[in-house]
Amino acid sequence: MYAINMEQNKKELNIPDEVKIFDTTLRDGEQAPGIALTVDEKIKIAQKLDELGVDTIEMGFPTVSAGERKAAKEMVRLDLDSELCGLARVVKKDIDAVIDSDLSYAHLFIGTSPLHRDYKLKKSKTEILNQSMEMVEYAKDHGLKVEFSAEDATRTELNYLIEFYRGVESAGADIINVPDTVGILVPSTTRTLIRTLRKKINAPISLHFHNDFGLAVSNSIIGIEEGANQSHCTINGIGERGGNTSLEELVVSLKIAYGINLSVDTTKLYDTSNFIGSITGIKMPPTKPIVGENAFAHESGIHVDGILKNSSTYEPIAPELVGHKRRIALGKHTGHAGIRSKLDEFNIKVTDKQFENIYSQVKILGDKGKCITDDDLKSIAITEISTSGKEYIKLLGLNVMTGQSVSATATVKISIEGEVMETSQIGVGPVDASILAVKSLVKDTVNINLDEYRLEAITGGTDALAETFVVISDDKGNKATGRATREDVILSSVVAVINSINRILDIQENS
Amino acid sequence: MYAINMEQNKKELNIPDEVKIFDTTLRDGEQAPGIALTVDEKIKIAQKLDELGVDTIEMGFPTVSAGERKAAKEMVRLDLDSELCGLARVVKKDIDAVIDSDLSYAHLFIGTSPLHRDYKLKKSKTEILNQSMEMVEYAKDHGLKVEFSAEDATRTELNYLIEFYRGVESAGADIINVPDTVGILVPSTTRTLIRTLRKKINAPISLHFHNDFGLAVSNSIIGIEEGANQSHCTINGIGERGGNTSLEELVVSLKIAYGINLSVDTTKLYDTSNFIGSITGIKMPPTKPIVGENAFAHESGIHVDGILKNSSTYEPIAPELVGHKRRIALGKHTGHAGIRSKLDEFNIKVTDKQFENIYSQVKILGDKGKCITDDDLKSIAITEISTSGKEYIKLLGLNVMTGQSVSATATVKISIEGEVMETSQIGVGPVDASILAVKSLVKDTVNINLDEYRLEAITGGTDALAETFVVISDDKGNKATGRATREDVILSSVVAVINSINRILDIQENS
Repeated sequence: MYAINMEQNKKELNIPDEVKIFDTTLRDGEQAPGIALTVDEKIKIAQKLDELGVDTIEMGFPTVSAGERKAAKEMVRLDLDSELCGLARVVKKDIDAVIDSDLSYAHLFIGTSPLHRDYKLKKSKTEILNQSMEMVEYAKDHGLKVEFSAEDATRTELNYLIEFYRGVESAGADIINVPDTVGILVPSTTRTLIRTLRKKINAPISLHFHNDFGLAVSNSIIGIEEGANQSHCTINGIGERGGNTSLEELVVSLKIAYGINLSVDTTKLYDTSNFIGSITGIKMPPTKPIVGENAFAHESGIHVDGILKNSSTYEPIAPELVGHKRRIALGKHTGHAGIRSKLDEFNIKVTDKQFENIYSQVKILGDKGKCITDDDLKSIAITEISTSGKEYIKLLGLNVMTGQSVSATATVKISIEGEVMETSQIGVGPVDASILAVKSLVKDTVNINLDEYRLEAITGGTDALAETFVVISDDKGNKATGRATREDVILSSVVAVINSINRILDIQENS
Repeated sequence: MYAINMEQNKKELNIPDEVKIFDTTLRDGEQAPGIALTVDEKIKIAQKLDELGVDTIEMGFPTVSAGERKAAKEMVRLDLDSELCGLARVVKKDIDAVIDSDLSYAHLFIGTSPLHRDYKLKKSKTEILNQSMEMVEYAKDHGLKVEFSAEDATRTELNYLIEFYRGVESAGADIINVPDTVGILVPSTTRTLIRTLRKKINAPISLHFHNDFGLAVSNSIIGIEEGANQSHCTINGIGERGGNTSLEELVVSLKIAYGINLSVDTTKLYDTSNFIGSITGIKMPPTKPIVGENAFAHESGIHVDGILKNSSTYEPIAPELVGHKRRIALGKHTGHAGIRSKLDEFNIKVTDKQFENIYSQVKILGDKGKCITDDDLKSIAITEISTSGKEYIKLLGLNVMTGQSVSATATVKISIEGEVMETSQIGVGPVDASILAVKSLVKDTVNINLDEYRLEAITGGTDALAETFVVISDDKGNKATGRATREDVILSSVVAVINSINRILDIQENS
């Protein structure tokens, strides 16, 4: 039930029967300052994009380096379902580099705006058009499929832009691409531009929109409403400056809101986004649509209450549709319903009185500005329901020696339920040696495995606080976390581990 | 010079004479899972928003806690230029909380869609409308300005939505707000919906759009093209799930692309965005439009070359317009022009041969997947031009003891240009002690200050590598960086500091 019915609305639009997704994560995405991919990484990404189901992969700019050409050749050998395309300026050298890379699809470009003609190229309109037509013919003569971009199209005189596109179309270009190179299009100008071009050009129209004003996805949709047949996009919208059209946002809008049939498998979007975030180092914030960690997370009392009654109340689509998961988060806005559902999920039974104590602790922490993780809630709840709440293990002493000539050595003294014991261990560094000593001391009580060790980045002086966070598990599959903050990084690590062991012992006692 | 002239295009649109910015960073923004603000933080943010020049600040939801009401009262006392507004359900208790907080502007809401009526509220259409009208009258009787939201408006039957809005308008609501609660609007449906409502409603229309499909900003613009008078937004677009309309993107589009007069001072956008990123802990990625670190950064050879000839070639607006800065970044796509301009900026003179060596080192590092910072380039260049390239200071020995009973103690042995010396120092932790020892040993050669110490987060086992990065300065104002990676966090810190001192000595030698 939508206020405005899309099927009726679509009658006034000019959406083509088929829309193609041209992914340029490996070309324009990689051009984002701070991203640098190796040949192997580029090949892995191409395989991911192929699995996702994009129609075309723009693999790079073959003329720029031997690495690019090597990557292209290896991708061609993989015989992917996605078509592979390479970028080239309208010069023989660049087109030859595409051919030499075994690619059969070239994306040619040249700047057409007054700014690009006068400052960058120092060439006239006629020179630019003639050179472009000649190079389209050269590429076609060599058997290439040709997509042509008038760079900075949206700041080019409309009459010249139409003349230019008709020229390269007549020279044989298979696809006409419209780059909004510096992202100046807005909804109304996009509509007028693509409507105008659609009337003048017979070839399929492709869109290449930049996100400088945050409008790339929407402009791509509007272009498709006006008859464009293809959109360039990148995973997570990465690219020069504010990036490009975000693939996941465009695909979900087109498939789900417009009911347009696309080759992309939406259930792989979340996974692909995370993969690209890790490999490029550009992580998306929790608020990123579709794929961010908050995309299907709910914290505020009213929302959580609604979600638990019917998830559609506060979700536009089911998270599974994009391979994501629903998450009830905890914080200062959490209501009773959210905490109850979490405790049920963890299978922790509490009395009403215990529940009220847990609820008020969550609220107090939230008011202090703290975000409460699932593990924090588990700790609060387990501490609340544990009859003892005691420290089974206490740290009595710690001595560490390290240097350049011998291995780091740690001596640790603890008591386990009153019984004092100590031992020393060597390790690759002082933290490693200390933790090995703790593990060996407790091994008759509990066999622990350190699943995660995280030292929060210390910024400031060398006397800043070091916060250590650990996740451990016992051999029964119980998991517990521990945290400690000290000026001494080694002490902070040891205390965190001991805290986590006490928590595991609490869980064993209470299960 | 744009392909499509905005002034001509605007004639077909219905843009109102005045458009207002209603900021809900402190209400819907704060509801984002993971954000929790203290009363003091909320007040600081309100002051920032007032300086930025937003028309209205939705300060929170007074009924939810004493903290919210306290924050509201303190904000009222500040006598800001921005109007202050508080959220309330259509119940007396909530409206009273707005009044008790000294606010004079209430944002009332109730769910109107079948999903909200049937699952959440379990009330009929008539009951919901009657209750809403009654509560509008109650609020008006108490002197409040009233903005009314039909929650989930975009999934409400259009006929009922119009009937509902006309009802609350007749009861006295001053502003009619249209929430796209789960972000299902797309360009064409937004246009149809707001065009329809604009014909049926006399009161100013406000938009409250969510970003689940990445379309909130564009939908807000389209709503304003169709006659809406106000848009809700948040700084950085933070909010539930995929967030809300991003204030900085909306404001720049409206002011710059549409030439609409707004009260917001765009030159404060970059600073405000960073402030909100720090205080909420939700940092924007470099690719965030307008305010991200890459928004005006350029790396690829073709782009840098264009930018250096005329910055408009690859920028839609001047960075100063939003309080940001242009940045030439270095990496595998960097061309000669980019590196030359950087070296000029650092005032480092190199011969052609030295330049080629520096250029190829940058390319090699880039191909390895490394991002090259300005400091990295300085180091590469200084090493290249330094005639010696030698290690002035060498680490010969390091011994560290730490524990629970006495202060961490470090003994460091180094040679300075062949002269061997050693000393011990105590510190709050082993890293601190070691660095203090190094500083005291070199103090007759160079007086260094540790400006920055960063231990890269170690994830994995306790035997993972620790990467230390330091920035130091001498008393002449020279700065140098140092990096080291070791299994032992202490050793890695000491080696990084010694590397940075050697670099400072190189700079002193060469300046």
